Amino acid sequence: MSDNHSSGQAAPHKRILTGIKPTGIPHLGNYVGAIRPAIQSIQNSDSDAFFFLADYHSIIGCHDPAIIHESTKAIAATWLACGLDPERVTFYRQSDVPEILELSWILSSSCAKGLMNRAHAYKAAVDANMEKEDVDPDQGINMGLFGYPVLMAADILMFNATHVPVGRDQIQHIEMARDIAGTFNHRYKPLFTEPEALVDDNTPLLTGLDGRKMSKSYNNVIPLFGEFNSQADPEKMMRKAIMRIVTNSQLPEEPKDPDASAIFEIYKAFATPEEIANLRAQYESGIGWGDAKEQLFQQINNEIAPFRARYQELMANPKELEEILQMGADKARRHSRKQLDKARRAIGIRPLAKLK
Amino acid sequence: MSDNHSSGQAAPHKRILTGIKPTGIPHLGNYVGAIRPAIQSIQNSDSDAFFFLADYHSIIGCHDPAIIHESTKAIAATWLACGLDPERVTFYRQSDVPEILELSWILSSSCAKGLMNRAHAYKAAVDANMEKEDVDPDQGINMGLFGYPVLMAADILMFNATHVPVGRDQIQHIEMARDIAGTFNHRYKPLFTEPEALVDDNTPLLTGLDGRKMSKSYNNVIPLFGEFNSQADPEKMMRKAIMRIVTNSQLPEEPKDPDASAIFEIYKAFATPEEIANLRAQYESGIGWGDAKEQLFQQINNEIAPFRARYQELMANPKELEEILQMGADKARRHSRKQLDKARRAIGIRPLAKLK
Repeated sequence: MSDNHSSGQAAPHKRILTGIKPTGIPHLGNYVGAIRPAIQSIQNSDSDAFFFLADYHSIIGCHDPAIIHESTKAIAATWLACGLDPERVTFYRQSDVPEILELSWILSSSCAKGLMNRAHAYKAAVDANMEKEDVDPDQGINMGLFGYPVLMAADILMFNATHVPVGRDQIQHIEMARDIAGTFNHRYKPLFTEPEALVDDNTPLLTGLDGRKMSKSYNNVIPLFGEFNSQADPEKMMRKAIMRIVTNSQLPEEPKDPDASAIFEIYKAFATPEEIANLRAQYESGIGWGDAKEQLFQQINNEIAPFRARYQELMANPKELEEILQMGADKARRHSRKQLDKARRAIGIRPLAKLK
Repeated sequence: MSDNHSSGQAAPHKRILTGIKPTGIPHLGNYVGAIRPAIQSIQNSDSDAFFFLADYHSIIGCHDPAIIHESTKAIAATWLACGLDPERVTFYRQSDVPEILELSWILSSSCAKGLMNRAHAYKAAVDANMEKEDVDPDQGINMGLFGYPVLMAADILMFNATHVPVGRDQIQHIEMARDIAGTFNHRYKPLFTEPEALVDDNTPLLTGLDGRKMSKSYNNVIPLFGEFNSQADPEKMMRKAIMRIVTNSQLPEEPKDPDASAIFEIYKAFATPEEIANLRAQYESGIGWGDAKEQLFQQINNEIAPFRARYQELMANPKELEEILQMGADKARRHSRKQLDKARRAIGIRPLAKLK
């Protein structure tokens, strides 16, 4: 056996892993906050990159099979349309890599239950129950929600990812993966790289139509490529949404404060420094809200229109999408089969004899 | 799609499923209490039967890869030597059927965490912690121990087993599997048969060498086919163990009470009613303990000796063992692949398009 020489601990270079949860359809905030920076960061680096559709995470909270299926399709199409290069990035659907689920079980025995008791998502659900009277603290919490940080550890450790880009609220998951890796490595064999969280605090958080953070749950989003099962023209939908951005009642010719304007804030996420300076000057010398919204629409649409065309092409051709995902699964499984085999051997699961 | 016509709910006949945890090496108590009745019950019925080596359960509590591997080998050889017919029974190693691990994750989201809070094994571990001072109730408990009833549900539901023979302490696990099946069936699609526990209260519990229940943890067992890595002759080991059975100090010619004698009790598990009546008469008219032990040894050895020869043959030929297990895995996977595919489709995980 030659398990040792290729130990993950000695992984030679940076390997970035990003999970994308397919529930719902992405909006402009997702594009600016997650999709665009993720794709750009890979284009500008020589790191290995693994991006995956985390469909086995989606089933924890979403029990509608049609939404799971349609979201997977829409989100795969979105990322590809926005420039994810499936030749450059290993882009796969989690459920196409069954080795991950097997590893997840193996890692369960190297994960203290106490670690899961302290997970933010679980604790938030318990806290919500505690506020009610006569309700069990675990009311409505399923074992998927309680145990998903173990699956997340398997997602990461399977590929010996070195860096995982996450929001601040997700750092804990990476620490859990490190903890689980450490326990397994110490107990059995140093197979797993302890991943680091990559937190980018510079990623803009877009303001929504109503002035709050743009979020599906506030129903204040600008759609990126339209809505689920909608026949409406997506470009028109985007313009319509932008025209609904809440403004104050200043008259067109009044000077305006760009830094208090959601329109200006969103514009900044799509413009060069020169363009931003130019719009700032227009604000200060007086610009009508309708004019500002029109400029914002044009600016976003310039960037998005080519992606939108590709998105629609992919959505109309699920065979191409499926082929791309299968290519990704093949690439991912070249790693996962080997890694799982090492993990199985480390815990004592191997054939009793070599056949043939 | 033709998922419906073959729904597990309408499974036409009895399908028995038995899991065998490969930790340690079986003793005479296991033979009399589990192995022999399981094999006999199948021989005398026309039920479908699935017997599996639950190696992915063993890793929860045993972190020694050599023990996992060696136990799997010894226990597979034991069951086959004792008459398990791998043509009649689907006999497989759990870890050769990766679909079970994937189903286990799918079922997690249909399993309330509160159900696991009430599991006996988990509660016993918590209770033991509570008796100590300054110890977290979950101290030393891993997510494998906490979540294994979900894996057990997957073991059972994967094959739509209708009946699962268990000890009284395991009835709860079957109820949990029923609960999980019910939740999934109601939420998505009626895919899973709700299994019934088969409890046989007539199976003898053997007394050990010291008069307590025969159990590895009391170190009072009579080995069935010898010990791990021991060069000692297994027949001699068995005789030696029997000669160590604790007796009282009655003289050889004194009449003795058979019903207070461990020797007699073990003898009953291996003898016909006539043989039992005969030994009872000898007890009542006075029999020396040495003579009684010799009769017990002969009685057990008559039954075990042919099995012992086959056991040694299989242990010396792991290739044959592995081939048998692979044959079983092939049979099991003919079911598990289909059942998993149905479960995946039910939750919304399926290809975006048919390729080729």
